[in-house]
Amino acid sequence: MFVLGYTRGSMVSEGRAVAVELEWVEGGGVTTPLGWRAGAAYAGVRTYGEEPRYDVGILVSEQPASVAGIFSRNGVVGAPIKYNRARVVTGRARGIVANSGNANTVTGEQGDRDAARMAELAARQSGIEVQEMLVASTGVIGRIMPMDKIEAGIVSIEPTADGGALFTRAIMTTDTVPKHRAARVTSGGRTYTVGGTAKGSGMVHPDMATVFCFLTTDAPCELGWLQQTLREVGDLSINMIDVDMDSSTSDTMLLFANGAAGGEPIDATHPASGPLREAIEALAIALARDLARDGEGARTLIEVTVEGAATREDARKAARTVTSSPLVKTMVTGRDANLGRVLMAVGRSGARVEVERASVWIGPYCAFERGVPTDVDYAVLSKAMDAEEVKIRVELGLGEERATAWGCDLTEDYIRINADYTT
Amino acid sequence: MFVLGYTRGSMVSEGRAVAVELEWVEGGGVTTPLGWRAGAAYAGVRTYGEEPRYDVGILVSEQPASVAGIFSRNGVVGAPIKYNRARVVTGRARGIVANSGNANTVTGEQGDRDAARMAELAARQSGIEVQEMLVASTGVIGRIMPMDKIEAGIVSIEPTADGGALFTRAIMTTDTVPKHRAARVTSGGRTYTVGGTAKGSGMVHPDMATVFCFLTTDAPCELGWLQQTLREVGDLSINMIDVDMDSSTSDTMLLFANGAAGGEPIDATHPASGPLREAIEALAIALARDLARDGEGARTLIEVTVEGAATREDARKAARTVTSSPLVKTMVTGRDANLGRVLMAVGRSGARVEVERASVWIGPYCAFERGVPTDVDYAVLSKAMDAEEVKIRVELGLGEERATAWGCDLTEDYIRINADYTT
Repeated sequence: MFVLGYTRGSMVSEGRAVAVELEWVEGGGVTTPLGWRAGAAYAGVRTYGEEPRYDVGILVSEQPASVAGIFSRNGVVGAPIKYNRARVVTGRARGIVANSGNANTVTGEQGDRDAARMAELAARQSGIEVQEMLVASTGVIGRIMPMDKIEAGIVSIEPTADGGALFTRAIMTTDTVPKHRAARVTSGGRTYTVGGTAKGSGMVHPDMATVFCFLTTDAPCELGWLQQTLREVGDLSINMIDVDMDSSTSDTMLLFANGAAGGEPIDATHPASGPLREAIEALAIALARDLARDGEGARTLIEVTVEGAATREDARKAARTVTSSPLVKTMVTGRDANLGRVLMAVGRSGARVEVERASVWIGPYCAFERGVPTDVDYAVLSKAMDAEEVKIRVELGLGEERATAWGCDLTEDYIRINADYTT
Repeated sequence: MFVLGYTRGSMVSEGRAVAVELEWVEGGGVTTPLGWRAGAAYAGVRTYGEEPRYDVGILVSEQPASVAGIFSRNGVVGAPIKYNRARVVTGRARGIVANSGNANTVTGEQGDRDAARMAELAARQSGIEVQEMLVASTGVIGRIMPMDKIEAGIVSIEPTADGGALFTRAIMTTDTVPKHRAARVTSGGRTYTVGGTAKGSGMVHPDMATVFCFLTTDAPCELGWLQQTLREVGDLSINMIDVDMDSSTSDTMLLFANGAAGGEPIDATHPASGPLREAIEALAIALARDLARDGEGARTLIEVTVEGAATREDARKAARTVTSSPLVKTMVTGRDANLGRVLMAVGRSGARVEVERASVWIGPYCAFERGVPTDVDYAVLSKAMDAEEVKIRVELGLGEERATAWGCDLTEDYIRINADYTT
């Protein structure tokens, strides 16, 4: 059992005061919580890549469930996003059908009909009402969906209680590894399980412009609590990763709760509220880090923490801008400790900054102290970058707010993947 | 004589109604206007690269001049920016001393003293008052300036009337070609000349995070007119290029006018106001295109025009976001016509967009018409990208506003330059 301790809003990796014991379930995923089933099929939508892989999947609860969702803020969104938004407001959904290979985006009214058709077929295949089924598509933008293939795929799927790993594979695009996790938390003698899967670290294969993060739990959750928890957790996890700054037309994060673990509905006054919230947050942050680490062509996970900001929004903007800076990314790629780039990125983030108060660390080494370079040797700083994970910390000296963001280095493989791989 | 025709605010390259005859001066630059001198020295500040190159330069007018300046909006700026801001407000300056190799940024109070020292020495060397001399530095951030080398360089410079080409070389960092141009315009029987040089297409060599654009003219200009003209022209030129979205700590655009051509001071009511403004704009846009074309590792200039926007700010945001999108850049790199990426970038720009009204062209070919893909063959679209210059046009269908931005493709050479080239 791996015990992950952290306080709310702090970094998972800092290992601060242990508030809750989380039990991570090895090999777990979206079907680890009670009452969840999933399955996948190879439909032939995703025609690139070396071999046939699953490209259509269904995730569904055996019983009615609540759902909360957050979606891409891009002004152009795919047909599935429009479809889901209209349904998630009701808070009632218990399944999702997802495909990779085609994002069903910029596809006009035909795209809307295709999204609805996918939901209809998947609902029928799963034995649930059509309004309980959501839709997610990731892949090329601006091409009409090959519905004959998708339909044949959907009707061949038989969701099972151990199908989470198959479903995860069906939503992968250029992800090099599947990303799925599960964790258990106990409160008041009752055990709740949270599972999750994620795909697509930022912009992935050409036009596979999507981050999906689907979380499931068997806890019974009051809808308002579920929605607020997802909003807050999304802002601490998926919304703090940046692989190449191109926000997608299809980004989707969903949190389903089916109550199969039993007990009273959990709201802010319920004793399990804190532990469950922390489990959801830990899972989402772990998946976000998995996504950043698997960014296209990435060799190094970059974790940027900004402290001492005047406002929380300043801390968030600064941390995100540093992780998304091509110059910071290539600095890490080349293990070339020009940490002035970090201050430059903070400077253009829009966050309030007074350079004579700002300090920058890489790992344990301080490179700039209150606006002037320290005498730490360049070679020492560069060596600190030669790792699978690089931690950069900026202290702004202007307040008490902090935020952490994750990104990855930028390598020649990113260019190869995005330029040379013709769809 | 090359006649460049355009109407105010439109693209140079569209060759619309010819309003003014501009005579481009072949091989011209900052010393082409009357009364301007320049020179450069190799001081050894810029130690990277294959061979010794000029790295300190002085540009100075033989007579008093007016100046307008716009500077980086980055919250962290170099000592020279602080120095210049305090002096440009007076509108009186007639020279600039510039170096490459070290940006004198994040260098604390020592940096402020070094900037002042450079101005003092260069003023003395040029025989002008210290308060008439500005300073510009580009290069590594966060290292104290090697003032012994810089000082030795400055005192060895002898500005001459044909020294513009040397000065241009002194401000180059990873620029592969020097960028300098000059043009003449005649109004009321009097000829005015405008010259200019620019360096550093966005982020260049590691930490060479700077765009400089210095313009000189021998026209006599009323200060308010000069300032407004620079603001407007900057917004149509240097502010519309993006090589890798990292705005610099040292970006500087200056417009000097020494009046050596004679005549009454030019303000908005002067008959030469229109022609001179158009000459300055044409020169600045030509230099901006030169910068974008010479972006690190770039093979292709990308020109993005957004039309039919609801507001001017929307048009500008959308055009800039498309040119700065890594996915659009790599699409051009790979000649892979996934033009949905253009709509995705417009969508996240913050501009108002209704996808069902939006159309996208590449060259003469329409790829998306009112939100749906056209049946133009993929191979045709990709072939249209196989050029030294790719023009993308987006029609938003929401209004009358338009803007043009320039960028370049993103190649593996960008990564090599920024990661593998250790300072």
